[in-house]
Amino acid sequence: MLIKGASILQNGELKKGLDIQIIDHKISAVGRELQAPERNDLIIDATGKLAIPGLVNGHTHLAMTLLRGYADDMELMPWLQEKIWPIEAKLTASDIRAGVRLGCLELIRFGITCYNDMYYFMDETARATREMGIRGVLSGVLFDMRPELLAEVEPFLRRWKDDPLIRPAVGPHAVYTCSEETLLRAKELAQRYQAALHIHLSETRDEVDSFVNQSHMTPVEYLDALGLLGPRTAAAHCVWLTPSDIRTLAELQVNVIHCPTSNLKLASGISPVDRLLDAGANVCLGTDGVSSNNNMSIFSEMKMAALVQKGNRGPTILPAAQVWKMATQNSYRAFGLDIGLAPGSLADLALIDLSRPWFSPESNHLSHLVYSMAGGVDTTICNGRVLMENGIVPGEAEILEDAQRSFERLTAS
Amino acid sequence: MLIKGASILQNGELKKGLDIQIIDHKISAVGRELQAPERNDLIIDATGKLAIPGLVNGHTHLAMTLLRGYADDMELMPWLQEKIWPIEAKLTASDIRAGVRLGCLELIRFGITCYNDMYYFMDETARATREMGIRGVLSGVLFDMRPELLAEVEPFLRRWKDDPLIRPAVGPHAVYTCSEETLLRAKELAQRYQAALHIHLSETRDEVDSFVNQSHMTPVEYLDALGLLGPRTAAAHCVWLTPSDIRTLAELQVNVIHCPTSNLKLASGISPVDRLLDAGANVCLGTDGVSSNNNMSIFSEMKMAALVQKGNRGPTILPAAQVWKMATQNSYRAFGLDIGLAPGSLADLALIDLSRPWFSPESNHLSHLVYSMAGGVDTTICNGRVLMENGIVPGEAEILEDAQRSFERLTAS
Repeated sequence: MLIKGASILQNGELKKGLDIQIIDHKISAVGRELQAPERNDLIIDATGKLAIPGLVNGHTHLAMTLLRGYADDMELMPWLQEKIWPIEAKLTASDIRAGVRLGCLELIRFGITCYNDMYYFMDETARATREMGIRGVLSGVLFDMRPELLAEVEPFLRRWKDDPLIRPAVGPHAVYTCSEETLLRAKELAQRYQAALHIHLSETRDEVDSFVNQSHMTPVEYLDALGLLGPRTAAAHCVWLTPSDIRTLAELQVNVIHCPTSNLKLASGISPVDRLLDAGANVCLGTDGVSSNNNMSIFSEMKMAALVQKGNRGPTILPAAQVWKMATQNSYRAFGLDIGLAPGSLADLALIDLSRPWFSPESNHLSHLVYSMAGGVDTTICNGRVLMENGIVPGEAEILEDAQRSFERLTAS
Repeated sequence: MLIKGASILQNGELKKGLDIQIIDHKISAVGRELQAPERNDLIIDATGKLAIPGLVNGHTHLAMTLLRGYADDMELMPWLQEKIWPIEAKLTASDIRAGVRLGCLELIRFGITCYNDMYYFMDETARATREMGIRGVLSGVLFDMRPELLAEVEPFLRRWKDDPLIRPAVGPHAVYTCSEETLLRAKELAQRYQAALHIHLSETRDEVDSFVNQSHMTPVEYLDALGLLGPRTAAAHCVWLTPSDIRTLAELQVNVIHCPTSNLKLASGISPVDRLLDAGANVCLGTDGVSSNNNMSIFSEMKMAALVQKGNRGPTILPAAQVWKMATQNSYRAFGLDIGLAPGSLADLALIDLSRPWFSPESNHLSHLVYSMAGGVDTTICNGRVLMENGIVPGEAEILEDAQRSFERLTAS
């Protein structure tokens, strides 16, 4: 495949007229006047388009995309007890397929080529994700309330460990829902299979306060003591942290997945992202599930991340380049992804139409990507496969119909 | 003109297959199986599209759209002194035309049919706005630093008072930049011409603190004492308010223009919107200029408004329906606009493509508009004129080129 005449940001500067040559699932060359690798190969005209490396959604529950708009503007407990849990009790594999495909559709439209998920029915999630052509770091959620889930983890890790798109992972829900035994078992499995460990960490004040009252340690101290924190750990939220927690997360190279929209919508608090970054922590971005967002856009998450920190700490905090890095390089590091618009990198990229007024004037494209960009991308390629070209995703209508059927069945009284 | 088969939200419920008949600049009928008013009249197929009434951007400085991305992530004073003021000193009428047309392009793409502006070169702004087909409530900014601006107000009010799209208004900048004499003269002119009065009010803590120290009144008390507060006053920001200020703004029916993105980006603070609404104040939404946003989307402003209040006060605050009302009904009341999808209303409306994944499933369209909607609308009609159809705005490329030329000239060293 050859992408002709793209614009690319190199060290913040826009270079125009560059070709990107793709062989199989990797970028083979980036330069001027390149040839298609093979005769009759697909050529994509990228004139007037900005090529960006594929973005990463570092924390979500993708199948919940099915529940978009089903319950908003509620307190956490009534929301869970009256709305989410009753629906989740009814979920079948076919609903998961419907929700994951709808979610992937949205990831594709937002130029996201990898997402990190924690939910139920992970084999179904993996199959739907692979079918949609997206990378998924997937973990089945572990709760002590549902001890049978633990037995599914190892078979899942074995089944998917060599898949080109799916990375099976281990997902203990949180310190307040998993026993020490469950957490240690999760750690052991993650280590044995060199898998990522995905956990919610210090999201709400109440959760942290009651944990500290009970155990006289912060959740971070506790996970550190159990050996669950390290460079393969993705810790979502990290809102309520002590200065010592911040140092620990940075020193142990934990990947902090910041979810600013969700934290605002659920009134969880404001993560000390500036202090985490100052300490050297690897901070990435996630949308969380649609119920607390309500979409999968990492563009809007970048803007939200920058603005919330500025609102909290001052206008110079978290400039555009730093927040862009959170959605790209920091996330690639977190999930071990060799993504980038360079030869040898995975062919994960998106093309954005620069002729929209929000990219005008051509002043600072990094600022435009973070602060002005509206809507989705034009073209998304993952692992060398074109998932959307010029706004067209093959099969989109059927995916939307399928999601609607599942939603209606689940919410029928 | 006839719009065929649209979906419309009526009391929060989605009604499908409705036609909207437009004669001249008004909606003449809404119903099923309507006929085009005249043979060969334009018929727009709105199957699968949601018709919404035109949105309002209640506070901006539209010509500044030219400076998008030129200076971000800076403290207020260096930003003004090193970046904005030197550029503003170079602005000519042709730059204003370039910036206003670029801004209007964006308003059109976001389904906004009326904006409330305060800036320089307002005749040029009015001409460019009229040409683009948008409604503008336009006021030349008044500062004591530039006393010559005051003399331009009355001729401007006279010249534009009978225009179908332009409403000339009076724009004293703020209490800390205008003398009592200027403020009283502004009030007198606004009263004489029954024009709106547009002012920045209690935006930053420093500004309010130093005003209170100096005059022993809050800015709201001071403007009340001078008689500048009333139902024709649009007060932008209103972040730092006392409980008594809140009561005053509500009792005097002042239109509070909430600009949550700008307030975060400049770290101005969080407006007590929930308490303003509880007191009965008419709260609307504005983007402010692009330098502090960086786009003109009222969709993203709605989401930001809801999330910031939730983050600050709890998840049930400012539900979707309330924030939607701020961008529509409250704003129509503020600027005396008879907009609505009903017979007799102005033909100001937009069509949104419901086949995007962020509108799936069909659960709660008001929630989708506020929380999930990404990007712009498909079709925008203002005063019975189609400004964009299916994403095409005639002349867009030339407007973008013109903006680029102005930007390059202004920033050339």
